Amino acid sequence: MEGFDMSLLKEGERIDDLERNGYSIIQDPRRFCFGMDAVLLSGFAKASRGENAIDLGTGTGIIPILMAAKTEAAHLTGVEIQEDSADMARRSVEGNGLSDRISILTADIKELEKIFPAQSFEVVTSNPPYMSDLHGLKNPELPKAIARHEVLLTFRDLAKQASWLLKNTGRFYLVHRPFRLVEIIETLTEFGLEPKRMKMVHSYADREASMVLIEAVKGGGRYLKMEKPLIIYEAPGKYTQEIYDIYGY
Amino acid sequence: MEGFDMSLLKEGERIDDLERNGYSIIQDPRRFCFGMDAVLLSGFAKASRGENAIDLGTGTGIIPILMAAKTEAAHLTGVEIQEDSADMARRSVEGNGLSDRISILTADIKELEKIFPAQSFEVVTSNPPYMSDLHGLKNPELPKAIARHEVLLTFRDLAKQASWLLKNTGRFYLVHRPFRLVEIIETLTEFGLEPKRMKMVHSYADREASMVLIEAVKGGGRYLKMEKPLIIYEAPGKYTQEIYDIYGY
Repeated sequence: MEGFDMSLLKEGERIDDLERNGYSIIQDPRRFCFGMDAVLLSGFAKASRGENAIDLGTGTGIIPILMAAKTEAAHLTGVEIQEDSADMARRSVEGNGLSDRISILTADIKELEKIFPAQSFEVVTSNPPYMSDLHGLKNPELPKAIARHEVLLTFRDLAKQASWLLKNTGRFYLVHRPFRLVEIIETLTEFGLEPKRMKMVHSYADREASMVLIEAVKGGGRYLKMEKPLIIYEAPGKYTQEIYDIYGY
Repeated sequence: MEGFDMSLLKEGERIDDLERNGYSIIQDPRRFCFGMDAVLLSGFAKASRGENAIDLGTGTGIIPILMAAKTEAAHLTGVEIQEDSADMARRSVEGNGLSDRISILTADIKELEKIFPAQSFEVVTSNPPYMSDLHGLKNPELPKAIARHEVLLTFRDLAKQASWLLKNTGRFYLVHRPFRLVEIIETLTEFGLEPKRMKMVHSYADREASMVLIEAVKGGGRYLKMEKPLIIYEAPGKYTQEIYDIYGY
């Protein structure tokens, strides 16, 4: 965290070391904090030198910041509808000295086709809300609910915008829950986004998958590669080497 | 193999012990022999007491014979278009004393809707041809080609007939190649067969998946369970315990 201007922090916020290029991120434990999902997605996604990437629903900016560290992408845009989160993301970008490579935009993802010309990006990433309904959401805490449930954005809305934003042969990287995989595949292909690479994430080697990482290619041909599974824990409290590698320890 | 009437064998055929209930199976190494795929499918599929099951493209009858050993299904039907294979399957059924539980029908799967009334079965199984084209098939050996390539039956034909044959809430169990998973999911749902459970099969824990086992439920709701991966080899030449368990060693 050396070099990070601590005066960028507001009351109640904390700063977490990302273990990559000395980068850190501002978070607020009272709001939605990024999870392992976002970190795994940043390890799964690829961006080559000179490519432009956009992260849809960026929260506090974890994915653009990690991808700035891990890739040679020319420019990364993070889109977030909640101004409080976008504001934290902007301050993290500034504190990490990344203002020339990362822009944070406060906007509704559903409106992006009015903001950007079609085919503006080579790469789209997203760690979207997983839950399709609001059952069991009693007295919801709105900032967390917006991040976790499809309150403001359905998966269909997301796929439509990702397809609009991507150049032909551009890649959409996402993380989601396996229980929704059938709908995800149908929706992606409906918008011309062909799943080409998937990776199942299991908490332990003998548990069902808890996350799925997907690379879909706009206009891609039919051929899916199902990669080796990613196992999180080797034993209770002990991550596997692959997780340590992704986290950069 | 005790009890198996060896006079049922024809010249050039061999008999393999299935390590289940003392059952054996007649095969002909000059033709298509069953692979691990069929054995894994018989371990993944479920049939409850009193249910009726049908296996589409049964070859030498491996799946009905293994399921007769592993389940309490009332009756199992195996459908095979190649008479030579169907004949071997019938002789294996007879040799195992299973003629009252298993029927082998020589028929074109595409014609089954003319043979059986709709909704005749609780369970459909299939280890279909995996390859959708005939590229690279030089001077094809027809019996093997029919089993491996979609010469006589496309996946769409198969899904259509499976849907016709199944009762509502009946289950379709299949094994296929992950590279075709997107098309498989789209085709299943097109015919009202909702994927509910999947299992990826990897030769080693650090290799991409080489097979996928799928349970689809006719008229099922949307919710997929991606089970723990099935790893075949622990080390070169050494199967994992799960494989030994499925094979019954």
